[in-house]
Amino acid sequence: MSLGDIRPILLLPPDGLGKYRVELIDQTQLPLDFVLKQYTEVDDVIRAIRDMEVRGAPAIGIAGACGLVLSAQQNPNKQSLKQDAQRLNATRPTAVNLQWALNRMITLIDTLDDSHPDTWVPSLAQEAQRIIDEDLAMCIAMGDHGARWIQETVPIREGESTWGVLTHCNAGALATAGYGTAVGVIRSLYRDDPTLRVMADETRPRLQGASLTVWELTQTGIPVTLQADNMAAWSMKQGRVDAVVVGADRITANGDAANKIGTYMLALAAKAHNIPFYVAAPSSTFDLALSSGELIPIEHRDETEVAVIGSQRITPEGVSCYNPGFDVTPNDLITAIFTEKGVLLPPYTASIARQLG
Amino acid sequence: MSLGDIRPILLLPPDGLGKYRVELIDQTQLPLDFVLKQYTEVDDVIRAIRDMEVRGAPAIGIAGACGLVLSAQQNPNKQSLKQDAQRLNATRPTAVNLQWALNRMITLIDTLDDSHPDTWVPSLAQEAQRIIDEDLAMCIAMGDHGARWIQETVPIREGESTWGVLTHCNAGALATAGYGTAVGVIRSLYRDDPTLRVMADETRPRLQGASLTVWELTQTGIPVTLQADNMAAWSMKQGRVDAVVVGADRITANGDAANKIGTYMLALAAKAHNIPFYVAAPSSTFDLALSSGELIPIEHRDETEVAVIGSQRITPEGVSCYNPGFDVTPNDLITAIFTEKGVLLPPYTASIARQLG
Repeated sequence: MSLGDIRPILLLPPDGLGKYRVELIDQTQLPLDFVLKQYTEVDDVIRAIRDMEVRGAPAIGIAGACGLVLSAQQNPNKQSLKQDAQRLNATRPTAVNLQWALNRMITLIDTLDDSHPDTWVPSLAQEAQRIIDEDLAMCIAMGDHGARWIQETVPIREGESTWGVLTHCNAGALATAGYGTAVGVIRSLYRDDPTLRVMADETRPRLQGASLTVWELTQTGIPVTLQADNMAAWSMKQGRVDAVVVGADRITANGDAANKIGTYMLALAAKAHNIPFYVAAPSSTFDLALSSGELIPIEHRDETEVAVIGSQRITPEGVSCYNPGFDVTPNDLITAIFTEKGVLLPPYTASIARQLG
Repeated sequence: MSLGDIRPILLLPPDGLGKYRVELIDQTQLPLDFVLKQYTEVDDVIRAIRDMEVRGAPAIGIAGACGLVLSAQQNPNKQSLKQDAQRLNATRPTAVNLQWALNRMITLIDTLDDSHPDTWVPSLAQEAQRIIDEDLAMCIAMGDHGARWIQETVPIREGESTWGVLTHCNAGALATAGYGTAVGVIRSLYRDDPTLRVMADETRPRLQGASLTVWELTQTGIPVTLQADNMAAWSMKQGRVDAVVVGADRITANGDAANKIGTYMLALAAKAHNIPFYVAAPSSTFDLALSSGELIPIEHRDETEVAVIGSQRITPEGVSCYNPGFDVTPNDLITAIFTEKGVLLPPYTASIARQLG
């Protein structure tokens, strides 16, 4: 399998009974087991998002759109479709791509012909597939924009024969329709310069870096070294990191970026070492209705995600745990933002308005 | 049990056959199981240090001293004692307290009366016990110095009724003869102000914060919240942290401090939030022979510590992992250093020379 071929979520064409199905890689079972799940009910998609069988802002958006196809298939009723859209939207509050994809489906739902409900499912399926296809194309464009920018602006360190990029969490093929956002940039960089080496943060508490990013990169032979999150600053000090590239779950009008918890601490460390810190995200990640990052709702997840790893309890029973799922990196720590349309530079309020407004 | 009573390593008085034994809490089994181990052979002590049944710079020093008591008991021969001292010293290269304790024992060994080898074991046992007793007294003094300094210099935040201290790894009773270094400061602070709240970093890869610090603090009812290491900067931003206190494994003449991996990244985050960052360590932690932190040997540990948590593999087989056991926090990120003798302030080269030179 090549990295370009990893497709975490598909809308399968109608089966022998004419039913659409959503097929996804169960990411909670990686890297030890590769398990495909097929769902035909919107409730299963809602649960799969909540349980993080599918995760990553763009992929969650795709799951939401596909969920509405299943909803229409179960019950072609505009009111119940909108209720399901609300239920889907409530699964994960921080990423905005979900809301964006659902809004796009609702815009279509409002135009559906009430006298021909038999046309609804194919129309919605076509729109969901368009979201998937566009996401893949955007990731490839974004990866190429980012790689070119980095190649042109980041100097080669003297005496170093290899070049190191650090990434946090999984902003890879598994987080998108394919190819990835931050990992897409890494993939485009590696295509042009095979001396590239990747440092992957394990990304506690759910370890998406260790289980997903490392798995993705090893599938293609891109050399990767795993580290605990708290080692990142020391890696930088030791000269292992020339650039940091991460994804985002929501970017506000001023360029503040919500992403997986730990991103903010990593950005502070990059700043202290004068290492460029890049965010790669499609335009669906931007929430221009919010002026700055303090307005982004931060999901707090179950304390057991910190207290228990797999089946291993790491701390005494009953201990209180802090578990924000995301944090916000302020725009002044971000060197550039890569989108499918190009490169955004500070001051972001102006450059974002110009490119996406 | 009260925190003051946790004694991770004891030299037990001679048993019915006149043999000294080393008794230690097997810290690899905490917090799920409380298991005491008794050893009568120096080889077992060497293995216990290497396997981290006993860990923490001051406690490792004590284990080294006790190991030499067992060595003398097995074979009262000065050459073999010195060989065993070398073998003990090679177990963990970063902490200097081990070397300090072994040197102290060797100084005594050189004075032992060759014509009365029956006096050797009691003499060495007495010295080892003195090291234990002194360490406990130093921790209590250090805790009180640190707490007083923090109370006098760190302002109460407006509108906040509680006060938050963050610590990394375990610099607690379990890392010393008892009471702890960084946790000793926290304990003295809590004694004076029971509104204190502690944030404990879990401390990957070996999770000493989750398993040891949280266990210690809950034993006494000091309120503690566990977090993943990468959450520390966000905790600070959210106003949960008024001060950071950590231990150290080696401090050089200029105040650079080696401590558990992740400490450096935490110090950078504290600096970015203008939060004071304190190191608590007894004078045996200072290595005045080294002018600065770049000269401290950093132990790199087995890659499986990162790849496997308990029995849970978190990443594909064969993946390369980065696993430095320690990092060095440069002196300019350290607000003050607490020792048993008082408070050291920048510029450290002068203050350290004055207090400890």
